[in-house]
Amino acid sequence: MKTEDIYPSRTGQDEQIIPRMDPIVYGDVWPEMENTLSSEQLESYQDKGFIVLPDYMPEMVDPLLEEVGQLKKTMAGREELITEPDSGELRTIFKPFAFSQLIDRFSRHPKILFIAQQLLGSDVYLTQSRVNIKPAFHGQSFPWHSDFETWHVEDGMPRMRAVTAWIMLTENNEYNGPLYVIPGSHKSFVSCVGITKSKNYDQSLKKQTAGVPQPKAMQHLLKANGIQGVYGSPGTVVFHECNLMHGSPDNISGMPRTLLMMVYNSCENKLVQPFCNQPPRPDYLRNTSTTALDMVDE
Amino acid sequence: MKTEDIYPSRTGQDEQIIPRMDPIVYGDVWPEMENTLSSEQLESYQDKGFIVLPDYMPEMVDPLLEEVGQLKKTMAGREELITEPDSGELRTIFKPFAFSQLIDRFSRHPKILFIAQQLLGSDVYLTQSRVNIKPAFHGQSFPWHSDFETWHVEDGMPRMRAVTAWIMLTENNEYNGPLYVIPGSHKSFVSCVGITKSKNYDQSLKKQTAGVPQPKAMQHLLKANGIQGVYGSPGTVVFHECNLMHGSPDNISGMPRTLLMMVYNSCENKLVQPFCNQPPRPDYLRNTSTTALDMVDE
Repeated sequence: MKTEDIYPSRTGQDEQIIPRMDPIVYGDVWPEMENTLSSEQLESYQDKGFIVLPDYMPEMVDPLLEEVGQLKKTMAGREELITEPDSGELRTIFKPFAFSQLIDRFSRHPKILFIAQQLLGSDVYLTQSRVNIKPAFHGQSFPWHSDFETWHVEDGMPRMRAVTAWIMLTENNEYNGPLYVIPGSHKSFVSCVGITKSKNYDQSLKKQTAGVPQPKAMQHLLKANGIQGVYGSPGTVVFHECNLMHGSPDNISGMPRTLLMMVYNSCENKLVQPFCNQPPRPDYLRNTSTTALDMVDE
Repeated sequence: MKTEDIYPSRTGQDEQIIPRMDPIVYGDVWPEMENTLSSEQLESYQDKGFIVLPDYMPEMVDPLLEEVGQLKKTMAGREELITEPDSGELRTIFKPFAFSQLIDRFSRHPKILFIAQQLLGSDVYLTQSRVNIKPAFHGQSFPWHSDFETWHVEDGMPRMRAVTAWIMLTENNEYNGPLYVIPGSHKSFVSCVGITKSKNYDQSLKKQTAGVPQPKAMQHLLKANGIQGVYGSPGTVVFHECNLMHGSPDNISGMPRTLLMMVYNSCENKLVQPFCNQPPRPDYLRNTSTTALDMVDE
């Protein structure tokens, strides 16, 4: 049975802003639990679409950076490695949890996994994960987009019930190409113009052009909500909702911006056939292993 | 007689950081004058290489923006108009004072001209002037550089005795591709690698590649001094020293960054033959009219 497409995008129609038709916070306050968000934090996430936990897991920074250094070597030549269009420098490692026990365990750490389960109100699995390195001096910008738009159209994610957790592995500041978000933008869905080309991901991972809202929709969202830069020290952890509009400027500073991100999808929101009628993207972009994640001990 | 090149750059040698051999502030505190900098302000400029005068001439913003709109039309097709590499949108109007009485008079306004004369300790003239528009969503970044390096090598400016004054015509904030400066970097000169190609300016005005310091020199300057973003409301005026290292990230915000800048050179520092042994750049980039500017009434 074909799943109904309640968020059509890139269907050849005009750009449109439609209301979100899904909850934002699916779970409840868990007063008896450690490592979960308070009611105030859940309200803030509901309202803004993201939450920043400053200096949350600084003890993980050095081990994770060391692991990334190892993966650069051991994964050389694999398709999970993405490089900068101009310089050839390492930019992304996809699916690092499959190549690193440390990262696999980190993705199931109670301080992360409980919050993902709480926000999504269910068991969860990793639908995507990556290490992103935006190099000093020439790390390139990324235009405004909603992750959900891509995951829906290209990966067949039916509903908005996913969250990205990411840890800063270098300082993120106003100068090194940080994440810009539009608080509150997760409450609307921008149905984008265009159609999805075959193997769009080959290009879009380096420079996104499909699924990119036009200036008119962006001005509407920006006028209503403004921009907020997401800054923090290494070890800061951020949870941002799958439909939050975000982008980032280029990095002309001398400091790379390095982070590890993990996208948790609800086990009740498993992927179906892509809504763009193209074949599914590779496994490292849309994980086909959808078993609920088990918590590890702290 | 050939002028000695005390700041050699792009001579085919390795990159080198050499000390500045010129004063920074040439003039004195003028206690009896209105519209000049105080001793504290002069000290700050001496130390950091720039000074921001917040909300200094807000009454000029609307008239100047209206004038820019007029110039876009009346100057269409002229070589003084520069457009974005990708989009074709207007990016720069060179030498606007030659086409606009309002801008000519603004460049000779006591609130601007007295400070330029004070900093340079002499009569001054406009060696370059421009309107810069960094458009919303796709205004491109500009790599780190010292203006003096270009003016010295390509225009034959003998010594560091020039200052750029610019007025913000839109808000400049952390999100709209603002000016980043490296405070204190004006005290060193980065002698750059490479050589200057014929008609380098045709390309360098859109995307600078010659006269760009390499990562090693930049890391040295950044480690010593850090980055400071220059932000302010429309009408804020900034004076920055000709050898201050600066750059800017791209503008993915919804707000253009528009400004009018005027480069004052000391009448005792008039241009000679370019030190790169290429023919001089066009008049709109290195003004051949070097008569001392007369103050207008406020």
